[in-house]
Amino acid sequence: MVIEFISVGTEILLGNITNTNARYLAEECAVLGLTNYYQVTVGDNESRLSAAIRTALDRSDIVILSGGLGPTEDDITRETVAKVLGREMKEVPEIHQQIQDYFERMGSRQPSSNNWRQAMVIDGAQIVENHNGTAPGMIVPVDDTKHIILMPGPPEELKMMFEESIAPFLAGLNHQVICSKTVKICGMGESRVADVVSDLIAAQTNPTIATYAKGGEVHLRITASGSDAKAARKSIKPIVKELKSRFGDKVYTTRESETLEQHVVGLLKRKKMTVATAESCTGGMVASTLINVPGASDVFNEGYITYSNEAKRKILGVKKKTLKNEGAVSEACAEEMAKGAAKAADARAAISVTGIAGPDGGTEEKPVGLVYIGCCIDDKVWVESYHMNGDRQKIREISVKKALDMLRRHLNHVEQD
Amino acid sequence: MVIEFISVGTEILLGNITNTNARYLAEECAVLGLTNYYQVTVGDNESRLSAAIRTALDRSDIVILSGGLGPTEDDITRETVAKVLGREMKEVPEIHQQIQDYFERMGSRQPSSNNWRQAMVIDGAQIVENHNGTAPGMIVPVDDTKHIILMPGPPEELKMMFEESIAPFLAGLNHQVICSKTVKICGMGESRVADVVSDLIAAQTNPTIATYAKGGEVHLRITASGSDAKAARKSIKPIVKELKSRFGDKVYTTRESETLEQHVVGLLKRKKMTVATAESCTGGMVASTLINVPGASDVFNEGYITYSNEAKRKILGVKKKTLKNEGAVSEACAEEMAKGAAKAADARAAISVTGIAGPDGGTEEKPVGLVYIGCCIDDKVWVESYHMNGDRQKIREISVKKALDMLRRHLNHVEQD
Repeated sequence: MVIEFISVGTEILLGNITNTNARYLAEECAVLGLTNYYQVTVGDNESRLSAAIRTALDRSDIVILSGGLGPTEDDITRETVAKVLGREMKEVPEIHQQIQDYFERMGSRQPSSNNWRQAMVIDGAQIVENHNGTAPGMIVPVDDTKHIILMPGPPEELKMMFEESIAPFLAGLNHQVICSKTVKICGMGESRVADVVSDLIAAQTNPTIATYAKGGEVHLRITASGSDAKAARKSIKPIVKELKSRFGDKVYTTRESETLEQHVVGLLKRKKMTVATAESCTGGMVASTLINVPGASDVFNEGYITYSNEAKRKILGVKKKTLKNEGAVSEACAEEMAKGAAKAADARAAISVTGIAGPDGGTEEKPVGLVYIGCCIDDKVWVESYHMNGDRQKIREISVKKALDMLRRHLNHVEQD
Repeated sequence: MVIEFISVGTEILLGNITNTNARYLAEECAVLGLTNYYQVTVGDNESRLSAAIRTALDRSDIVILSGGLGPTEDDITRETVAKVLGREMKEVPEIHQQIQDYFERMGSRQPSSNNWRQAMVIDGAQIVENHNGTAPGMIVPVDDTKHIILMPGPPEELKMMFEESIAPFLAGLNHQVICSKTVKICGMGESRVADVVSDLIAAQTNPTIATYAKGGEVHLRITASGSDAKAARKSIKPIVKELKSRFGDKVYTTRESETLEQHVVGLLKRKKMTVATAESCTGGMVASTLINVPGASDVFNEGYITYSNEAKRKILGVKKKTLKNEGAVSEACAEEMAKGAAKAADARAAISVTGIAGPDGGTEEKPVGLVYIGCCIDDKVWVESYHMNGDRQKIREISVKKALDMLRRHLNHVEQD
């Protein structure tokens, strides 16, 4: 089945935003076994959008439109699809009520007249709930074989809706059953991972293996198709086993939805430990990444952002001598920070990060990108140093990943209580 | 002049990579005053690529193709363009030599037969040097008014080539000058902003105003065209003035590249103040957002992540009574957190965030999304409460934006030292 994506939005044509939706949809639809030949971006303009929809319906079975469902006057996707299909728009009282409720929850502000347009639905469309915003999505059957799907443009709304509603719908249309499993690897670059599995990739037919670099991690996705789920899943198993044996403890999970931070929080919970954080260049990112996991309160009580030397001394007890002789970006400082954080928070585990994120502050001896990460568990401390590439934000993001991964590796050696 | 982008690459259709080239080209071409109506992505397939090129030539003056110039067999952009235009390919000895030189510089590996295909050029094309790789670009005049431009797909090659050669070529074609200015607003939703300017938008011809929602902010971009830059800029001025008067202190900047956190760090610097943070549900995100601004060390020394009640008491001195009677998510707690953070860090300013980010922990009285933000400046404390929608991550992101905006507003009333 051929699927086409039309991204609607003048802000994409002006280059104000990167079209990350197209990539997300492409990746997800590939897993569902759908074929994508064309991705098109058009602005919020009726004649050009109509033409794009007509062309897409001619050559594809499913057309996903994203964007242009918002509350402003230039959001015309709903009305344009209705016109192309020669259908009426009708108001859905339930959505009207939802919009009312949404605005009441947000405070006293009244919805504007444009907000009510979001309650208008194309005749014959199945309404798809939006749990992250006010604009509902729609699945519009065009004829026996073709469908148009309308989704909101904001990526967090689109992703949630796709996962919850659109992916199951598409899987139902496509009778081939596709199963996939992801082996998530941390602490190894994409090209090295690719080298390790190059023989498997060269020989593959079904299942297939694909590598994806994702913010400091590499994911290996194994995809199998078959007439039923059981057969497809069975053919994946030996590949997962092989990958685990090749990558060892670099594999942190094979659970589809588990992130590194969720995995770490889970490990801490099982071992009944709490962790404290002491951050300099990451400035709270390690803590906030952990705290983004629901239920992190079981394993995290407090953390410290010690950006100045004075704060490192006062809060974490880093020695004046260490700061003077070795500097704040040093193995010794990372070690004392981790120990000090564990002590101050009365936690069995602690992680510390101190580094030079740039763009300034680098020297010949300690260049931008030099980061020390400390990990303290039950009074034992380890420190690792890294030389990272990229801008300030990227260096800080990779540091967070390395810190969580280091904690994970050391937690694996702690006996369960 | 209308420009169209065709991104060529099956890896984009499979969702293996995000198409950042389209955004880059769109942004650069908008600045050059070119109009972009369509962006298309197709795979490395001759018939579909031919069709896309023909359609683009029908409706656009300039067609930029990116990708498919590499050395592998599925790189077919050069040959396909030649076929569509009915032109021959011819080998250029200089490029042949450059490829030879490049491989010598890179080490001992010999070019493969496919590498030599990169020395083949479409008849009549102007060759564009690639200083970041082996595939040259081409500018192909189609007739008196139309051009096809071929560029390599790797973003670092494309960007360098665009800056060095393609942008000057396009600027020469287009005699119109475009200028734009952005008014950035915080603390007001997109639909309300649109309501406030609906009369201006309805009446606009040149300059034009467009609204963009960007992670909790709304940006109004005013774009003017004219025969010279001075005239275009002059016509933007009264609009900026009008918008500033309509939105008052909701406008935080009109500087193109200034973010809210940069603005706040700048304000603190000018007022020679430091700020401390006390975070519960945001868990370090406020601090890390501030610290992402280079030079934040002038205004930020330390911050506290006080996730547990015990941490709020111990580090910030929040009263036992407050936590017992009002709870950790309360106006009183936010107030004491902000005051306590300022005191503990010996800072003139402090911000505190305490809320229920979900998905669990909400009650009828204190639902998920309830967030209190405290701001303390020179011992005076303000607290604002919000009811936010979205998932855990979104609630925390909006909280950060609200916290920084609140600090900004109160800093505006502080006398400069």
